[in-house]
Amino acid sequence: MNKNNPPQLTHGGDWAGYQAEFGPGARLLDFSANVSPLGVPEGIRQAIARESARVDRYPDPLCRALGQALAEKEGCEPAQILCGNGAADLIWRAVLAVRPRRALIPAPTFAEYEGALTALGCQVDRYFLKREQGFRLGEDFLLHITEDTDMVFLCEPNNPTGVTASRALRQKILEKCRRVGALFVEDDCFEDFLDDPAGHSWQGTWRQEPNLLILKAFTKLYAMAGVRLGYCLCGNRTLLEKMAAVGQPWNVSSLAQAAGVAALREEGYVSQVRALIRRERPWLSGQLAALGLEVVPAEANYILFRSEKSLLEPMRRRGIVLRSCGNYPGLDGSWYRCAVRTHGENTALIEGLGEVLA
Amino acid sequence: MNKNNPPQLTHGGDWAGYQAEFGPGARLLDFSANVSPLGVPEGIRQAIARESARVDRYPDPLCRALGQALAEKEGCEPAQILCGNGAADLIWRAVLAVRPRRALIPAPTFAEYEGALTALGCQVDRYFLKREQGFRLGEDFLLHITEDTDMVFLCEPNNPTGVTASRALRQKILEKCRRVGALFVEDDCFEDFLDDPAGHSWQGTWRQEPNLLILKAFTKLYAMAGVRLGYCLCGNRTLLEKMAAVGQPWNVSSLAQAAGVAALREEGYVSQVRALIRRERPWLSGQLAALGLEVVPAEANYILFRSEKSLLEPMRRRGIVLRSCGNYPGLDGSWYRCAVRTHGENTALIEGLGEVLA
Repeated sequence: MNKNNPPQLTHGGDWAGYQAEFGPGARLLDFSANVSPLGVPEGIRQAIARESARVDRYPDPLCRALGQALAEKEGCEPAQILCGNGAADLIWRAVLAVRPRRALIPAPTFAEYEGALTALGCQVDRYFLKREQGFRLGEDFLLHITEDTDMVFLCEPNNPTGVTASRALRQKILEKCRRVGALFVEDDCFEDFLDDPAGHSWQGTWRQEPNLLILKAFTKLYAMAGVRLGYCLCGNRTLLEKMAAVGQPWNVSSLAQAAGVAALREEGYVSQVRALIRRERPWLSGQLAALGLEVVPAEANYILFRSEKSLLEPMRRRGIVLRSCGNYPGLDGSWYRCAVRTHGENTALIEGLGEVLA
Repeated sequence: MNKNNPPQLTHGGDWAGYQAEFGPGARLLDFSANVSPLGVPEGIRQAIARESARVDRYPDPLCRALGQALAEKEGCEPAQILCGNGAADLIWRAVLAVRPRRALIPAPTFAEYEGALTALGCQVDRYFLKREQGFRLGEDFLLHITEDTDMVFLCEPNNPTGVTASRALRQKILEKCRRVGALFVEDDCFEDFLDDPAGHSWQGTWRQEPNLLILKAFTKLYAMAGVRLGYCLCGNRTLLEKMAAVGQPWNVSSLAQAAGVAALREEGYVSQVRALIRRERPWLSGQLAALGLEVVPAEANYILFRSEKSLLEPMRRRGIVLRSCGNYPGLDGSWYRCAVRTHGENTALIEGLGEVLA
């Protein structure tokens, strides 16, 4: 392991590292993590504080109360849901449960799919998304799903590009996966930030699909990345039971379970976040483009853009942290990802970039 | 999977299940989980509440602040420590990092070793502890460590027996493991409840042992099982790096990291818990024996005992939950484990048992 870049620091959002670098008092704008910019809802904080009195007890290994609340939200049976210690926990469990020999992922995409697949001995085939096609998945992705494919991961909208694939293409991917006996894992962790989540979602159909696993997180929408809570939906109970059995039983803390139940009541907060992102995303994209940067049309709460001039260090000196995309296969160090945040923060980002690019 | 007994319910402490059974308002004494009976220290609750304001950020994947605090406590480098989502997380990671083909465990013992080993394709050899020897590990355990052994797990004090092996025997086990190239995993999660933890501990020597991995938890001593926080100590950094790499980077929540830092300051609480256990353990053991039960001499904060008469259901009807040991290989349904709790609770337990056995 390279000590300067341990594998645990593959991702953005290394707040503790930024604090060590800048000092704990420094005002720092973190655009490197894609979470709601409105902070933790008060109802979630209160639920955590309340639950803290009861943490002498082990967490419910079956997440019964949370599973029931999620089942009502998702219109399914609790047995069709498995909760995890963040969606990342469920990625690893899915790979452990399937034990694929060969898997297909797009590139660039969220690094944990390849991380889990490779660590667990699976050969990974990368389908490179093309810059000249706006990093949009093409129909030719289907050709890469072969009889040898055991698992296909798709992040929808994709991270770090912010681009979705059409429902029609994803339906074809699902069918091809079924034909070759592969599990299709669709990571919908950022779906709630789309303008039309319902039009994108498998809602109403996933329960009939035995080879579709859908990942969801509380992390981003409810600004609770530090709590660790994700879940997955699957019509195939045998798969969920396997996933439950390939790790410890107490993976979801009591605090996370209580926070999740409270989060599902935060409908006002969700409307606010979604309205904010819907308003700020086009503004921020437009401003980035006006600075002469190459901007990938974004659909979620983060934007991928490219700059010939190096931005990371000069922006950090201004107290603004971007996500360099240099460690994504399929991108290089000229690409950056920024979260969409509040108007004030986005304005500060644009001003900082303006100075650096001047 | 048997739907009536999912693998996640292998263990005791299923508080949510007990509540569903008895109703949320019921007064229930849970002797099935071995945690401090003094409840969560206030300092830990406050740390969790404070940290809840910052959970919009991802947890520190390197657990830097907690690792530093632990390194000071344990007298080692932060790089010799790996934190986990409870010690159970680290058991699974250890098995994933080593990928043993064959492992040796005693029986009965904590079920997660065999759970992880079996789920990950390892053949498990069981060394059956003998009732007539008070379930104490014999020197003949060494004979079962062969050239084929890749990993040996030992729970010290053992769960559910509450019995320790001598330092001399454990030293021989470590040496035999080194000779055959096996990793010796010693789970010291209950060590703090011994009358003389220092006399039992590897403190001062483990750093020089490349094939010794020591597991520790905050769960029991600080009554924070619901938070999920454990750690391990190892002189072999390569192993710790592998363990870090065989799972997601954000396994330890920000809340757990903050709780852990706060816990290490709770020296007064620890003295109180240890004094209570030291006082109550012999009293409770004596009372159980006086009821005519076969009691295994206990060294930690739980007691294994045997009753010809069935106790589980009649005690539950009295609102008292015991841990049936019927699902431990090497025991049967006539064996029970109870936690050592406060004097009032222990008295209620003895009174209830007295009624049932009368």
